[in-house]
Amino acid sequence: MKKFMNDPANFVREMIEGVYLANKDKLKWVPEYNILYRADLPKDKVAIMQGSGSGHEPAHIMCVGKGFLDAACPGNVFAAPPMNYVLECTKLIKSDKGVLHLINNYQGDRMAWATAKEEAEELGIKIGVVIIDDDVSVKDSTYTTGRRGVAGNFFIIKAVGAAAEKGADLDQLVELGKKVNSRTRSMGVALSSCIPPAKGSPIFKLGPDEIEVGVGIHGEPGRRRDKIKSAKDIIEEVFTAIHDDIPFKKGDRVAVMVNGLGGTPISELYLLYREAAKKCEETGLTIAKNYVGNYCTSLEMAGFSLTLVQLDDEIEGLLNDPAEIPIRVF
Amino acid sequence: MKKFMNDPANFVREMIEGVYLANKDKLKWVPEYNILYRADLPKDKVAIMQGSGSGHEPAHIMCVGKGFLDAACPGNVFAAPPMNYVLECTKLIKSDKGVLHLINNYQGDRMAWATAKEEAEELGIKIGVVIIDDDVSVKDSTYTTGRRGVAGNFFIIKAVGAAAEKGADLDQLVELGKKVNSRTRSMGVALSSCIPPAKGSPIFKLGPDEIEVGVGIHGEPGRRRDKIKSAKDIIEEVFTAIHDDIPFKKGDRVAVMVNGLGGTPISELYLLYREAAKKCEETGLTIAKNYVGNYCTSLEMAGFSLTLVQLDDEIEGLLNDPAEIPIRVF
Repeated sequence: MKKFMNDPANFVREMIEGVYLANKDKLKWVPEYNILYRADLPKDKVAIMQGSGSGHEPAHIMCVGKGFLDAACPGNVFAAPPMNYVLECTKLIKSDKGVLHLINNYQGDRMAWATAKEEAEELGIKIGVVIIDDDVSVKDSTYTTGRRGVAGNFFIIKAVGAAAEKGADLDQLVELGKKVNSRTRSMGVALSSCIPPAKGSPIFKLGPDEIEVGVGIHGEPGRRRDKIKSAKDIIEEVFTAIHDDIPFKKGDRVAVMVNGLGGTPISELYLLYREAAKKCEETGLTIAKNYVGNYCTSLEMAGFSLTLVQLDDEIEGLLNDPAEIPIRVF
Repeated sequence: MKKFMNDPANFVREMIEGVYLANKDKLKWVPEYNILYRADLPKDKVAIMQGSGSGHEPAHIMCVGKGFLDAACPGNVFAAPPMNYVLECTKLIKSDKGVLHLINNYQGDRMAWATAKEEAEELGIKIGVVIIDDDVSVKDSTYTTGRRGVAGNFFIIKAVGAAAEKGADLDQLVELGKKVNSRTRSMGVALSSCIPPAKGSPIFKLGPDEIEVGVGIHGEPGRRRDKIKSAKDIIEEVFTAIHDDIPFKKGDRVAVMVNGLGGTPISELYLLYREAAKKCEETGLTIAKNYVGNYCTSLEMAGFSLTLVQLDDEIEGLLNDPAEIPIRVF
């Protein structure tokens, strides 16, 4: 295993410290619970938090900022945050208007967040919950009953983050989050496995010409293993799986995300975007917003996921609203 | 070789088309010369262009926009743009105030740009030139006499782009570009090689525990091959090589960039940033600006480079000026 790290046991802590040090003017850090939260934390709006396993950066510790998350409390690599991380984070950012829990649909996350919710409610904190399950690849999975939550997460966070800044209340945000989730679909393809730092070896093996179609962001199996194909043929399959699942219809306005899984160069992501844009045109979808880059990764996995969101005026407006998050280019 | 692509011969064209399709409101595209340029191309300022080999994305085709480049004209993967690409691009964006050529110090680039400059000048176009050579790793290299131009490029582009928007003339921009270059130092480390699409095999081989210290962005050899070490020890060596080259001194304000080479997850880049920030503190440097992400890559190479810029008030102000480029997060 070759990685830029020190002791694997400190991988997550040192990465979070790096994010903190790069954003000391905007973020605060609580090392013992892996919490990063807004330095300018407002108390007059619903507070929004997320936190699943680490290893998916920039999700979610780099998505904390105005118009986005108020806090993130990730667990170890590919491990749900312990219940007390979620509880402490909830207590830290609580507001009289309540706290919104955005939860990826994995059994470990569901359990930790459900327990923390109960305890927070006993303390008088009002909690709203949105479960995210945008991955169309498989029905149940290694760590999941029902569908997995993957890169589509970004759109739920962005929409509820923007709406909360505008004064939406907790019930409205829960409804909005559920709506965005219900209109969001994703599917991923891997060229290679990743290596969790503490494990030190790949989660799965692919032959020199093999790909995993429908891979999960923790290396969970997808629909099947296939031989490498052209970008056009890969997008054809993934796009169709997503498109037919809602189903999208001619004239829909959509947001399109081509998300890198960590080890894929941006050149290939734009080449894939070209194919996705052509499929949208062919099927009569109008791309109102596009996103090409690394949003929800799987350590150094080479691969990508495609996400489509069926927009309505409300969602499109919220995606266009300003936000301030630490992922920065200049 | 597993990549998301179609015919390797079309890799660059299809990637550029992807960037164009994702930014149709902001960019125009001239397919026969690989030119991407600003849709709102101004004619009342010095025009600025860059274009080296492809495979380094987002450099430079994704750096076209207000306050940045007016155009980019990349060559094929790891190949300088043909002379006529540079000439056609120069003619396309020319302004009465002149055209600034930003050139990475590689023999192929130097030759193509020098010839294009002569021809453009014969057409009455005023050309200014800045050569970029920020890589401290080695003196001469496989494709280079003198030092290589690598990720530090970003800072020269950003500074002259901002100054041009404020009305600086061609001579001033050349002086500014040279100044920023003279205060910018970089060095890279690779964990793995990349695979150029048309070649289909790695440029070099590293053993399962080997790293290349001082690697070039086309896989050129660095200072030496070493065994994998801790992130702390790797940054210690790279930071010291950069620091002592200027040399930086206590009290300097600096910009710090931890740049991914394409296949490195953002988690590792932030972990490296943590080490770099600690070294800055230890040596009395104040980090005024930081940049963590993929800025100048080498296809899917796993690795990073560190860049330090010795700021002065002028450069710091220009780095802080607004810019609009297609690399986008929401």
